[in-house]
Amino acid sequence: AETKRIAILGGDGIGPEVVAEAEKVLKKTEELFGVQFETEHALFGGVAIDQKGTPLPEETLELCKSADAVLLGAVGGPKWDNNPKELRPETGLLGIRKQLGLFSNIRPAVIFDCLKEASTLKPEVLEGTDLIVVRELTGGIYFGEKFRRDTENGQEAVDTCAYNEKEVERIVRQACEVARKRRKKLTSVDKANVLETSRLWRETVNRIAADYQDVELEHVLVDNCAMQLLRRPASFDVIVTENMFGDILSDEAAMLTGSIGMLASASLGEGSLGLYEPVHGSAPDIAGQGVANPIATILSVALMYKLSFNWQEAGDVIENAVKKVLDAGHRTADIAVDKSKAVGTSKMGDLIVEAM
Amino acid sequence: AETKRIAILGGDGIGPEVVAEAEKVLKKTEELFGVQFETEHALFGGVAIDQKGTPLPEETLELCKSADAVLLGAVGGPKWDNNPKELRPETGLLGIRKQLGLFSNIRPAVIFDCLKEASTLKPEVLEGTDLIVVRELTGGIYFGEKFRRDTENGQEAVDTCAYNEKEVERIVRQACEVARKRRKKLTSVDKANVLETSRLWRETVNRIAADYQDVELEHVLVDNCAMQLLRRPASFDVIVTENMFGDILSDEAAMLTGSIGMLASASLGEGSLGLYEPVHGSAPDIAGQGVANPIATILSVALMYKLSFNWQEAGDVIENAVKKVLDAGHRTADIAVDKSKAVGTSKMGDLIVEAM
Ligand SMILES: CC(C)[C@H](C(=O)O)[C@@H](O)C(=O)O
Ligand SMILES: CC(C)[C@H](C(=O)O)[C@@H](O)C(=O)O
Repeated sequence: AETKRIAILGGDGIGPEVVAEAEKVLKKTEELFGVQFETEHALFGGVAIDQKGTPLPEETLELCKSADAVLLGAVGGPKWDNNPKELRPETGLLGIRKQLGLFSNIRPAVIFDCLKEASTLKPEVLEGTDLIVVRELTGGIYFGEKFRRDTENGQEAVDTCAYNEKEVERIVRQACEVARKRRKKLTSVDKANVLETSRLWRETVNRIAADYQDVELEHVLVDNCAMQLLRRPASFDVIVTENMFGDILSDEAAMLTGSIGMLASASLGEGSLGLYEPVHGSAPDIAGQGVANPIATILSVALMYKLSFNWQEAGDVIENAVKKVLDAGHRTADIAVDKSKAVGTSKMGDLIVEAM
Repeated sequence: AETKRIAILGGDGIGPEVVAEAEKVLKKTEELFGVQFETEHALFGGVAIDQKGTPLPEETLELCKSADAVLLGAVGGPKWDNNPKELRPETGLLGIRKQLGLFSNIRPAVIFDCLKEASTLKPEVLEGTDLIVVRELTGGIYFGEKFRRDTENGQEAVDTCAYNEKEVERIVRQACEVARKRRKKLTSVDKANVLETSRLWRETVNRIAADYQDVELEHVLVDNCAMQLLRRPASFDVIVTENMFGDILSDEAAMLTGSIGMLASASLGEGSLGLYEPVHGSAPDIAGQGVANPIATILSVALMYKLSFNWQEAGDVIENAVKKVLDAGHRTADIAVDKSKAVGTSKMGDLIVEAM
C-alpha cells in the first residue's frame, strides 16, 4: 500500500495536547504494522488567525486537499469570540468542510461500560445505547445566503435554509449504507409539518430508502426526537438529519452517553478523504495543564483507519487498547471518580500505546 | 369585574377529553368565587378540517379574537398527516398564533415531587429543576418565505429565517420580566457563531438586558444548551430563544422533568389575551378511552387565571388542589407506578375539583 498522508491540525485550547497523544498512536501503528505515514502539521483556527490573519490559510487547505486524511484537535476560544466573522475559528471549520466537500458528519454515541455512571441518565435507560448520528454538513441554513436590511421595525437579519434533492440523496444513501452494516434501523429526523426543506427531505428519504428494503425506516419530528433520545436512547440505531438539527441532536446524544470526552467523529465526502476530530471542544479552561482526555482524539484515529484507509484491523487494535486501559482502571480527571488518582493527558496516551 | 369570555377548542385525539375536565375546574371556580365565565366551544384542527374544510375556520378565529382567553386541548393525528399543507391541523395552530399575535410561548418545566422517579434522569441531577422556556412564536423559519424551484441538482426547497429587532426586543423584554419575578437568571440561546439572525438576536438581547441590571444574563449556543439541559437542568431559570430552537429545547426540557402529562403552557401577545394548552400532544393512540391525564390542561387553566386574568389566587387554588390529589396518591395511567390502581380522566378531574 502506498504511504498515507495525514494532515494534522492541532488547533486551539487542548487541541494540540490531545493531538500529540494521537500522534503517538500513529507512530505505534507504524511500528506494529511496518507501515509509514507521512504526517504534516498546519495552522488552523484561532492560532491561524493569530499567525496568518485567517482561520483557514491557503496552505492549510492545500495540504488537506492533498492528504488522505485530516486529523483535527479542536478550534475556538474566548480570545476570538468577538471577532468579525472572517476572523473567527468556526469560519475556518465551516470553510474546510465546504472546501473539502465533507457533506457527511458521522458521530457515534456509545456507552463505555466503565462510564455508565458518568451519565446523568439512569443506567437502566442507557443500557444498550449504541447509535450514530449522520448529520448533513455542507448544506442547509449553515451555508445559505445571510444578510441584514433595514426595515420599519429596525434592522432585520435573514438566514436562508436550502436543500436540493442531490444533497439529500447522497447523505441519506450514506446513512442507509451505515445502517445496513449495523442494526438496520434508520430514523430520519425533520420538521416536515413546518418546513419546506423538511418536506423535500422526507420525500427524498422515502425514495432512496426504497432501495434499502432491508433497512427499517421511521420519520420522527425534530422536537419529538429531542424527547425520544431521553426516553428511549437504546431504540435508535442510525439517525440521519440535516445540518442544524444534526448539530443539536448529535450534541444531545453525545451528552446523554456521559462519555463526551470519549467520542470520536468523522466528516466524509464522496471519496475516501475524511476529517477526524473529537466531539468535545477546545476546553480553553483546562488548556495547557496536561489534564485533557485524549481518548476521543485517539479513537478518531481508529475511525480514520477504518473509514478513510479501509483498515479495520488497525482501528480495532486502537479500540481494544483503549478498552484495556479503561478496564484496568486508568482515568483522566474528566472521567475519574477519584480525581486524585487521575492520570494526565500524556500518561493516558502512553498507556494506550503500551496496550496496543 | 366584567364576565370573562373563554373560547374553548377541544381539538383532536384526547383534546376534548382533557378539556372537559378543565371545564369542570372553570365551573368550580365560578362556585367558589361567585364569578361567571362565558364559555364557547369552537372547531379547530383536524375536527375542523373534517367538518369545515379548514383547520382554523373564520368563526373560530373571530371567537378567539373576541375572547379574553383561549383554552386549547390538542390538535393533530395520523388521519391528517398526509394532507396538503392547508388541510393540516398544524397549519391551524400556526395560523391562530400568528392571527392572535401570540409571539411568546411560555413553557414551565418543573418537577413534581411525586414524579421525580418518572424521569429518565437521575433524581440527584433533577433536584431543584424549575425552569421556564420563553420561546418566540410568530417569527423565524416557521413564518419565513418557503418555496421550491428546479435546479440542475433536482428540486430545491427553501425556507427563510428572518427576525427584526422589534420582534426580538419584545420577546426578550418579556423574558426579562419573567426572570425578574423568579430567580433573576436569563439564558439566551442562539447560534451566533453561524447564523446572522442569531447575531442580531444576541446584540438585541445585550441591548435590552442592559435595562434589567438585576437579571443575570448568559448566552449559550443551542447545541451546548441541548447538552447543558441534560447536565445541569437545575441551573437554568429562564431560557429565551427563537422559534425553532425553542420548539426543540422546550420539548427536551419537558421530557427531562419526567412529567410531560403535567406541563402547561401559555402563548401570549401584547395584550392580556392568551392561549393556554397542555404541552403534550393529541395522543391518538389512547383517545376515546377515558385514560388520558387531564392535569396539564387543568394547570393550563391556572396559568390562564394568573397570566390573562391577573388572578393569582384562583390559579393557586387549582395548583394546590392538584398537589393535594397527587400527594394523596391518585394517579392516571401515564404516571402510575401500579397501572392497575390508576384512575381515569374524568375521575382525576373530579378529584381535583373536590380538592379545590
Ligand atoms: C463550531 C460550530 C460552527 C460547529 C457547528 O455548528 O457545526 C460545531 O458546533 C460542531 O458541531 O462541529
Ligand atoms: C405542531 C407544531 C407545528 C408545533 C410547533 O412546532 O410549534 C408543536 O410542535 C408545538 O411545539 O406547539
